[in-house]
Amino acid sequence: MCRHLGTCIFCKIIKGEIPSFKLVETDLSFSFLDIGPLSKGHSLVIPKYHAEKLHQLPDEYLSDAMPVAKKIAAALGAENYNILQNNGRIAHQEVDHVHFHVIPKPSLTDDEGLVVGWPAKKADMDELKALHEELKGKL
Amino acid sequence: MCRHLGTCIFCKIIKGEIPSFKLVETDLSFSFLDIGPLSKGHSLVIPKYHAEKLHQLPDEYLSDAMPVAKKIAAALGAENYNILQNNGRIAHQEVDHVHFHVIPKPSLTDDEGLVVGWPAKKADMDELKALHEELKGKL
Repeated sequence: MCRHLGTCIFCKIIKGEIPSFKLVETDLSFSFLDIGPLSKGHSLVIPKYHAEKLHQLPDEYLSDAMPVAKKIAAALGAENYNILQNNGRIAHQEVDHVHFHVIPKPSLTDDEGLVVGWPAKKADMDELKALHEELKGKL
Repeated sequence: MCRHLGTCIFCKIIKGEIPSFKLVETDLSFSFLDIGPLSKGHSLVIPKYHAEKLHQLPDEYLSDAMPVAKKIAAALGAENYNILQNNGRIAHQEVDHVHFHVIPKPSLTDDEGLVVGWPAKKADMDELKALHEELKGKL
């Protein structure tokens, strides 16, 4: 099912050309331990379809990924964890094949697990309303 | 379909008891603009089922959420964006009803969009192998 690009390391992992610590595999998804973990148990869920970004992925692959992430989270037994999927280099994507991180957050310290910065703004309600109108026309 | 808790603000938004800038709604999911956005277009996708954490959510709700996030990402037209779902207070969860953030990342600066800190470690292959064996027994 993997419509791979020859150079994609995640496609190679799916095909077994690069070894991995495989976790759950389904018809549409593959998952394995990250070898550059942010914390113990950091795992990746990847669709068996080569798409760079989330919005390019067929729905059936998107639908399959989160139940796999759930199985991994349950097996890890983590109380606190983040699910993260990055799109684009400035959004911290490093491999151009959609991947969902499952990242346990064992403690509040910044030296393990995902470190989240949250520059929230007070919403301007008029701007939000205008954006809402604009988006409704595109949805 | 919403098995709500009386005090959950996201359950109230789903039921229309609290107004929102609604985007996509399906039988299983609801989505809307975040009113404390990290960037223009920051949106939330929430299941119509009250569960605090991802691993407590029935699979059908998990499966429904990502195609909704995809629709929003496509409508936003963002080149760079993050999908984030936080579980537990120290993993930056603020509302105890599963929610997936769709957060555009318009620039590399730390004043808009998600700010990601990545304390990656060099993996100890023996530890990873032991963890892999342990997890395989639980999956």
